[in-house]
Amino acid sequence: MSESLPPELRRVVIIGTGLIGTSIALALRERGADVLLSDRDAASVRLAVELGAGSALPAGDRQSGPAGLAVLAVPPGAVAATLRDAQKRGLAHSYTDVASVKAFPLAEAAELGCDLESFVAGHPLAGRERSGPAAARADLFLGRPWALCPAPESSAEVVSAATALARACGAEPIIVDAAEHDRAVALVSHAPHVVAAAMAARLGDGSDVALGLSGQGVRDVTRIAAGDPQLWTGILGANAEPVADVLDAVATELTMAASALRTGAAAGSSAGRAAAGPVADLLRRGNTGQAKIPGKHGGRQSSYAIVPVLIPDRPGELALLFQAAGVAGVNIEDVSIEHSPGRPMGVIEL
Amino acid sequence: MSESLPPELRRVVIIGTGLIGTSIALALRERGADVLLSDRDAASVRLAVELGAGSALPAGDRQSGPAGLAVLAVPPGAVAATLRDAQKRGLAHSYTDVASVKAFPLAEAAELGCDLESFVAGHPLAGRERSGPAAARADLFLGRPWALCPAPESSAEVVSAATALARACGAEPIIVDAAEHDRAVALVSHAPHVVAAAMAARLGDGSDVALGLSGQGVRDVTRIAAGDPQLWTGILGANAEPVADVLDAVATELTMAASALRTGAAAGSSAGRAAAGPVADLLRRGNTGQAKIPGKHGGRQSSYAIVPVLIPDRPGELALLFQAAGVAGVNIEDVSIEHSPGRPMGVIEL
Repeated sequence: MSESLPPELRRVVIIGTGLIGTSIALALRERGADVLLSDRDAASVRLAVELGAGSALPAGDRQSGPAGLAVLAVPPGAVAATLRDAQKRGLAHSYTDVASVKAFPLAEAAELGCDLESFVAGHPLAGRERSGPAAARADLFLGRPWALCPAPESSAEVVSAATALARACGAEPIIVDAAEHDRAVALVSHAPHVVAAAMAARLGDGSDVALGLSGQGVRDVTRIAAGDPQLWTGILGANAEPVADVLDAVATELTMAASALRTGAAAGSSAGRAAAGPVADLLRRGNTGQAKIPGKHGGRQSSYAIVPVLIPDRPGELALLFQAAGVAGVNIEDVSIEHSPGRPMGVIEL
Repeated sequence: MSESLPPELRRVVIIGTGLIGTSIALALRERGADVLLSDRDAASVRLAVELGAGSALPAGDRQSGPAGLAVLAVPPGAVAATLRDAQKRGLAHSYTDVASVKAFPLAEAAELGCDLESFVAGHPLAGRERSGPAAARADLFLGRPWALCPAPESSAEVVSAATALARACGAEPIIVDAAEHDRAVALVSHAPHVVAAAMAARLGDGSDVALGLSGQGVRDVTRIAAGDPQLWTGILGANAEPVADVLDAVATELTMAASALRTGAAAGSSAGRAAAGPVADLLRRGNTGQAKIPGKHGGRQSSYAIVPVLIPDRPGELALLFQAAGVAGVNIEDVSIEHSPGRPMGVIEL
């Protein structure tokens, strides 16, 4: 398929063979690109090569001229220094990164004297709780937004190369200002991570009886708190002010709710109902905010039907169910399995 | 199957035909019980009757002696008054409720002069985002914990009847002190609800660009913020102090994290790494707390494998996959579908 690849993607260097870098490499390999891999951890490069993500970038000087594009798939705090080193080695004509924060690495790159004309900051909005090359998937970016934040210095050529990269990975490129990007991801990604962690941290003090009463709600609220603390500390530190603004606002809401609840409790049940005003208001605003998140198909999902089905917990039972749905011409869009601990059955919702 | 029902469940009155009351009624009907339904909303009773949940409780005096058990499936703030009225009418020998808060209704019942000997407070740990009799399911309680909080006055007979009810619904009865129950659900259910709402409320201010960058993380963190504000205001107000304690603790964590982030940002990137200590510590405690939530099978799930599969988005494709898994003797425990907006395929993880 290499004839469909734009020339600037025929040879691509990937620096950083973690989840994102290796996934980009796999996507490019599927389209026939020549991919050269580098990482400060040699074992990670070997694993990525074994997974078919490309070949190892030869150490020292380049052998066959600069690549069309180098992708810096390193944490936000390492982007600027990695860019400087790659440009010194003349690894590629164009450079982009994939860090989830944009203003801070850009400022650092300017400070280090990097060439900003051949660089455009990028951020594919995709990820998993698991990290490393073994978790990589060629389809990780399919249909996901891929933010590109050109600096005033960024050349049309580098923006075009990064746009082609996003499209080659199946993502939707979105041009957005770096500061606006950072405020956006603070709101929809970074702050929710800290909020989940703060709620999960309270569970550490819970008794076994309390944890035993856990339902799906607290599981969902705290799921992303399982993420890698080191990686996330770096991300949060690089987007500190926008994240801190959201966290302070959430903390203020919670303190207000706690105070309203205590006032209501102290005043007794009937006055408690009157004092419930601020709490009810917060819950209603929560309804409104939650409804603003776009659905999987880019809009509301109200035209779908949810169908609960009870099935035995043994091999083949789900197959029978899905086969029946296929025969009936039903297209299953989502599946939720409510498993009953200690019981040989579960309920699934389609 | 009525011969397997204990005598106290042969005839049961359900007051409140919402999600929980109607689900209990359906479970009891499946086991052959005679179920009498009542609700202040006559349309809700009619719908529950149509769904096969039982027959309407005749107005005025009982016709054929008290039922074995009356289940008060009303919000926490209505439990005490409903118990008093039901006892005045002599509707049953034993009474229990299903409210998600226990100490407050018990104290109110004592204040109203209810007979506490024939009452035991109960709380089945099950629910859905949707409410009302149409969302009810006979299997809602399968394998779920069902807390029972006997007061010192509660008779052995009523505890036995409520225990039989929990078992008849497929739940696991757990005897727990009312105050301990309330602290537990504040931690694992009520506070997470407010935290999700406070995070979701911030999304209300987000731009379309920001919301367009939403991923699965923020979706999960805010999912339960879609719950009914009126119902939840009542629950939170009835468990005010324990919930407020958790909310204050979460707010303190968030304020601390925001302050550490700002300090790091103000001090520049290298000092920022040093100031990241408190943030990294919070994220690590989040890891620990999240890992304490019991898995679906009551323990850790580390022995399971996660298998990503890419399939076309059309009827029958999931069936083929699940059929293949069944043939291979693989028991599928959970399914996650990552759908790609605007693309005719998706990735599923087994």
